[in-house]
Parts: sequence; C-alpha cells; structure tokens
Amino acid sequence: MSLSNAPSNASSLSQPAVETDALIIGAGPAGLFQAFQLGLQGIAAQLVDALPHAGGQCYQLYGHKPIYDIPGIPVCSGLELVRRLEQQIAPMQVPRHLGQQVQSVEPMADGRWQIGTTAGTWFQARTVFIAAGVGAFVPKALKVPGAELLDPEQLLYHPQHLDGAAGREVLVYGGDEEAVTAAIGCAVEGGMRARKTYLMHRRDAFSAEPGQLAQLQQLRESGAVEVITGQITEVRQQDGRLQAVQWMDGEGNEHPLPLELLLVYLGISPRLGPLTDWGLALERKQLLVDPATLATSAPGIYAIGDIVSYPGKKRLILCAFHEATMAAFAAAEYLQGSKPLLEYTTTSARLHAILGVEHPAAG
Amino acid sequence: MSLSNAPSNASSLSQPAVETDALIIGAGPAGLFQAFQLGLQGIAAQLVDALPHAGGQCYQLYGHKPIYDIPGIPVCSGLELVRRLEQQIAPMQVPRHLGQQVQSVEPMADGRWQIGTTAGTWFQARTVFIAAGVGAFVPKALKVPGAELLDPEQLLYHPQHLDGAAGREVLVYGGDEEAVTAAIGCAVEGGMRARKTYLMHRRDAFSAEPGQLAQLQQLRESGAVEVITGQITEVRQQDGRLQAVQWMDGEGNEHPLPLELLLVYLGISPRLGPLTDWGLALERKQLLVDPATLATSAPGIYAIGDIVSYPGKKRLILCAFHEATMAAFAAAEYLQGSKPLLEYTTTSARLHAILGVEHPAAG
Ligand SMILES: Cc1cc2nc3c(=O)[nH]c(=O)nc-3n(C[C@H](O)[C@H](O)[C@H](O)COP(=O)(O)OP(=O)(O)OC[C@H]3O[C@@H](n4cnc5c(N)ncnc54)[C@H](O)[C@@H]3O)c2cc1C
Ligand SMILES: Cc1cc2nc3c(=O)[nH]c(=O)nc-3n(C[C@H](O)[C@H](O)[C@H](O)COP(=O)(O)OP(=O)(O)OC[C@H]3O[C@@H](n4cnc5c(N)ncnc54)[C@H](O)[C@@H]3O)c2cc1C
Repeated sequence: MSLSNAPSNASSLSQPAVETDALIIGAGPAGLFQAFQLGLQGIAAQLVDALPHAGGQCYQLYGHKPIYDIPGIPVCSGLELVRRLEQQIAPMQVPRHLGQQVQSVEPMADGRWQIGTTAGTWFQARTVFIAAGVGAFVPKALKVPGAELLDPEQLLYHPQHLDGAAGREVLVYGGDEEAVTAAIGCAVEGGMRARKTYLMHRRDAFSAEPGQLAQLQQLRESGAVEVITGQITEVRQQDGRLQAVQWMDGEGNEHPLPLELLLVYLGISPRLGPLTDWGLALERKQLLVDPATLATSAPGIYAIGDIVSYPGKKRLILCAFHEATMAAFAAAEYLQGSKPLLEYTTTSARLHAILGVEHPAAG
Repeated sequence: MSLSNAPSNASSLSQPAVETDALIIGAGPAGLFQAFQLGLQGIAAQLVDALPHAGGQCYQLYGHKPIYDIPGIPVCSGLELVRRLEQQIAPMQVPRHLGQQVQSVEPMADGRWQIGTTAGTWFQARTVFIAAGVGAFVPKALKVPGAELLDPEQLLYHPQHLDGAAGREVLVYGGDEEAVTAAIGCAVEGGMRARKTYLMHRRDAFSAEPGQLAQLQQLRESGAVEVITGQITEVRQQDGRLQAVQWMDGEGNEHPLPLELLLVYLGISPRLGPLTDWGLALERKQLLVDPATLATSAPGIYAIGDIVSYPGKKRLILCAFHEATMAAFAAAEYLQGSKPLLEYTTTSARLHAILGVEHPAAG
C-alpha cells in the first residue's frame, strides 16, 4: 500500500503531519456532503483535492449547464449546486488542502492511516473517505522529449498566477480561454510585462469570449503577442535551464524558439492515478464497498460517489449524498465503538448546536 | 394477500378500475420523488394517500419547522420541501387519489396487482411502490360505546368542509386549532349557521392563533358557541339516527347532550393498518427489501422510505430519494426486460423532452 514516488515512512516527513479524525479525498459533491454528514456526527474532517477549488465534475465539466434531478431543486447549474453545498457545510468549517493530489495512503502501526500529497502535505487520519469520482482532475502533461526533465518553475501547467513571467521570454501553449487569458496577462499594459510573449496553438483559432479575442487581436497587431501556428516537438534544456522549444509548422518543418518560461494549457482531465496502488479491492477501476457502510476492504477507509461499486450502483449525485450519510454513521460507530443514534436536524438540540442555529420554536 | 373488509375480486368492482403502469402508495417525500424518478424512466404513475394533501410527515408533523439536511438546501421547512418536490414533479403530471387509504393489494392472473381503497377506487397496476412511511395518516377514532354504530354522515372526523352543519345542533369535539376553526365556522355570522354550536374539550383551554381565540371568546359571550368542559363517554342513537352524547364533567358526573351532528377532532396519526395483511415479508413492522432494487418479496412490488428495512437503513428523507431512484431503475428493467441506460438530466435529450425543458445550450 505504498506509492513508489512518495516517501514511505513518517520519519521522512518534510513538515509536521496534519492530524485529523477524518480525511476526505476529493471535494466533488460527494466529498462536500461527506464533510457535512461527518460534521453532524461530530467528526472533524479535512478535505483534499487536486483542483484549486471544490466541486469536482459539477464545477469542471458542466458548471454552467442545468441539472434537474437533485431532489427538491427543480433546476440548478453545476456551479449553483456547489455553491449551495458550500453554504450548507459552512458551519462545519472544514480545512481544505487544494491543488494537490493524494499520492500515498499507508497504514500506521496504531491503526491510523498516513496520507501524502504531491504538495508534500502529510496527514495522519483515523478514518479516510475516498470521494475521488472519476479521478483527480489534473492538467494534461506535455509529452515530448525533454519536458519531463525541466524544473517545474520553468514549465507550468494551468498556473493560478503569472508572477514568473515578468521580464522573461514566455511561450503560452494552448488554444482555450485559459491560454488566451494567460497570453493577454503576460503582454498587456498593466499586466505581467513579459519581455516577449508567444502564443502557440496548432491552428490559428482560439476559443475565448469575444472581448478577449478582440484584445488578443490588438496585442498581435501591436506586436506585444506573437502567435505561432504549430506544435511543440521537443524541449531543450542545459544544466536544468530551459533553452528553447523545437516546434513543427503545418508543412512539417521544424523550428527552434528560444525561451525562458513555458506555460502549458492542454486541458484538465480526470486521472484515477495513484488510487489503484493503495491496495484496496477494485473491480473495473471502481472501489468495491459494502452498501450498508460504504466500507472498503481496509478498516477505517470508506469510499463514496462515482468511484465506488456495489450491486445496483448508479453514478448519480443524489446516490452519493445517501452514501455519504451511510458512511458517516458507519465511521461514527467505528470511531466510538457504538452505534450512533439517528437524530433529526429538525428537532435535535445537539445538531442545532453543530449547525449554529437557534433552537427553533415549536410549530 | 387479501383484506377482510375489502371486496376480494374484480367482479365486485363498483367503478371501472384505473389502469396504470405504476401505483405509488403514499405521497410523502418518498412517494413524490418516486413519481419523479418513474417519470424520468418514462413510466406513468399515479399517487394515492390517506391524507387530503401530499407531503406525509413533512406536512403533517413539522410543516413549519426547519430541516437542515436535505442536500443542497441549507434550510427549509417541511412545507417548503413539499412545495419544492411538487414543483419538480410538475412536468410528470401525476394523477392523485387523495383522502383514501389503500386497503387491499391482490395479485391478478396476468401478473398485475389489483389495489382497492377505502373510497372504493380500484387500480390495476403493473408495478406497485409502497411509500407508506410510518403508516397512513388517519384521524384518531372516538372510542366510546355507540360511536362505531353511527352513520358516517353524523359523525365526521376532521371534515374538509362543514356543509352538514347548517341548521343543525352540532358538537365540535376537540381542543386544537382545527376544532376551534370548525366551531367558529359553524357559529359565526356568514358561516354555516348551525342551529346550535357546542364545543367540548376536556379542559377550558384551546390551542389556536390569538385572533381565533379572540373570535371564539366573542362567540361564547354572544351565546353563539357554548363551550363544555368534559369528555364524551357514550354516543346514543335510535334507528341509526344520532340522538345525544353522554358526557362526564370534571367531578365525574354524567350528563346527556341532545345532538344532530358530531364533529370529532382528536388528531391525525399514522397507522400501519392494512399493509401488514398484504402478505409481504415484514420485520418489526418494516417491509424487507433488497437495497439494490428496493424489491419486496412480491414480484413487481417495491417499497421505499421510512417503511422499509435493509442492512444499515436510516429513516432519513435523503435516503428515500436514493431508494426511489434505485427502485425506478429496477422497475424499468422489470417492465421492459432490459437494463435501462443511465442518462444525465444535464445532457439527455430524452430526459429534456420529459422535463419539458429547452435543450440547453452547450456551456
Ligand atoms: C456532463 C455531465 C453531466 C452530468 N449530469 C448529471 C445529472 O444531471 N445528475 C447527476 O446526478 N449526475 C450528473 N453527472 C454525474 C455527476 O457529476 C457525478 O456523479 C458526480 O460529480 C460524482 O461526484 P463525486 O464527488 O463522486 O466525484 P467528482 O465530481 O468526480 O469529484 C471527485 C473529486 O476528487 C478529486 N480527486 C480524485 N482523486 C484525487 C486524489 N488522488 N487526490 C486529490 N483529489 C482527488 C478530483 O479532482 C475531483 O475534484 C453528470 C456528469 C457529467 C460529466
Ligand atoms: C418531527 C420530525 C422531524 C424530522 N426531521 C427530519 C430531518 O431533519 N431530516 C430527515 O431526513 N428526516 C426527518 N424526519 C423524518 C422524515 O420526515 C421521514 O423520514 C420522511 O417523512 C419519510 O418519508 P416517507 O415518504 O417514507 O413517509 P411519510 O412522510 O410518513 O409519508 C407516508 C405517506 O403514506 C401515506 N400512507 C401510508 N399508508 C397508506 C395507505 N395504506 N393508503 C394510503 N396512504 C397511505 C401516509 O398517509 C403518508 O402521507 C423527521 C420526522 C419527524 C416526525
């Protein structure tokens, strides 16, 4: 149950481990509601997600499209559902560790689990909830010779900010709205003021808002952005420093382009990735769970949402909500050694205190 | 699988049977969402409930209290949840048969089920969904000698209207808001104009809105309503006609009260009732179901919500929503003989047509 590229014991921890009763892997709709149900059980939880924001598929794949089958919500967009869940779990004040992928999940001698992320964060958790959906949303990697050798400060995927671009020769690689936004951000008056901004895409066609496309056009005309139609075929570096990329035009001819920083926008897509190495029972890339408890094959590790399989399983959000509830009850029993009572949020003073609501008047 | 006090074969049907693919028994949150999920599967359903309105416990037991654990709805009252579910299922245009209790569920020779209600309605259904919660909400009966002999037009429980009171000597029996409303309705200028209105309760204390209590006080002072503090001990009738009730005061002395109409408000509470006689597998008054399909022990009969039991079952609304979804998929397979595809409401043109929504633009 260890992952090759992660340090494999606690003595090598670079920073003190975060201790928590429950660690939730994945902040999609399943993980968010898991935090709520754990909160109602009085179990402190923390959330990790590979994305820099919560919401999983709802945010990433259909943020502005309507959903019609969330019970009691005749229609809402993916983003609106995420906003509503965020509002619901706000009283739980769940710490988040975003923009980092869980790499390793390993048993500790005392029955807890040690979890490590790509950002070097370590957790020691009594219970783990895998709400990993269709996988960690991670940027698609540039797969050309030399790319893997580069220092991550010289090749950035979908960066959250453009600070590194100031005063340098920058290539933005991609054709979507994020790539266009980055090229404008590097080149525009009042922006990052790269020394030189290139924007490379395989076709001279970009998808972005009309206003952005107009702004890009102006920057092209003024020479502040140079658009190149082509594809990177190789990354050249010397002593760990980026020198240039080799690129190929439409006729198949190759050219070098000297460079100091490469920003890559090839899209973000889900990767099951390390999860398959954690030693849990899998069937066709789904975690096998007991539908009564959502327990996996490892004690204290539960799984819910799109990542799980059990007889009749439907990959729907409302089913994940039920699963999160069942898992929270099961974990409460696992942690406290006795079955928790079923209490109603409508009438329980204990739950009202957790939710931070006034005890409602009888009615 | 027959009930003693219901006609036991189709030849005795008083009116033509309603034919339907699916009959849902119970219009609480589980039954309402069952109608939605069946609609998405393209299965036509009809709803029956003992109450004159939908909503089950949410309406009847905590209409004005807040719920906090409906996923994506940080807070709403019981009534607000019912209103939201009603709005969501509106496109399905589900016929309702309210104010009647299902008494009998019997197998037909062709594999369908025949269902009879207390109102004499008959259904012939290919599938049945029992969403009976904690039982049928029915008025508490007056349990004194003679009450059971009375013609139901002379002893009414929680009547929906007071038409029968005009020109007659009426006793309203009870102390809650409905009882006070009825007494006012019988006696007030512009109301039903009973010849004489009595209001009897065991204490001279009534629970109603302040405005209603003030109005009652005025009617008492003007002699339009006579309040009696006591309890009915017997109902007297002759040749099937109500003559009087015998009542006992606080000192234990009995008195007769001549009468033409008795309106009884002893509250409405759930009764499992006939369901236990339908021949389905039960355990501690819960229907045993397979959590993968919500199938009961009888083919084509499914059960969901508070009435069911399976390993780990929690009597929560969000679990009933999941169960309704699983049951709809299982019933679709049962009816059409093949597994239905999982489609998303966000992207499926077939579901958009059912929901009556414009095909949303890509985004
Ligand atoms: C176009 C589309 C339309 C849809 N429409 C509907 C609909 O109408 N109704 C409906 O019910 N469902 C719909 N769905 C399905 C629904 O979105 C999923 O069922 C739901 O998102 C599953 O939630 P989840 O939390 O299990 O997983 P996800 O939403 O996939 O979230 C999982 C999260 O875990 C993170 N993660 C995974 N592994 C790791 C790791 N190792 N480290 C760190 N983070 C990790 C991911 O980055 C991600 O944010 C639709 C899906 C799509 C794609
Ligand atoms: C005070 C209180 C607070 C609650 N708070 C919460 C909360 O915060 N969160 C939560 O998730 N849950 C809560 N619950 C529980 C929740 O209300 C139930 O889980 C839910 O109502 C169950 O839905 P249901 O549709 O299965 O059953 P019900 O709501 O009981 O509805 C069943 C319906 O079926 C009808 N019926 C039954 N038998 C027959 C028959 N033979 N013929 C015709 N009709 C019939 C009944 O009249 C009724 O209308 C609370 C319950 C109470 C009492």
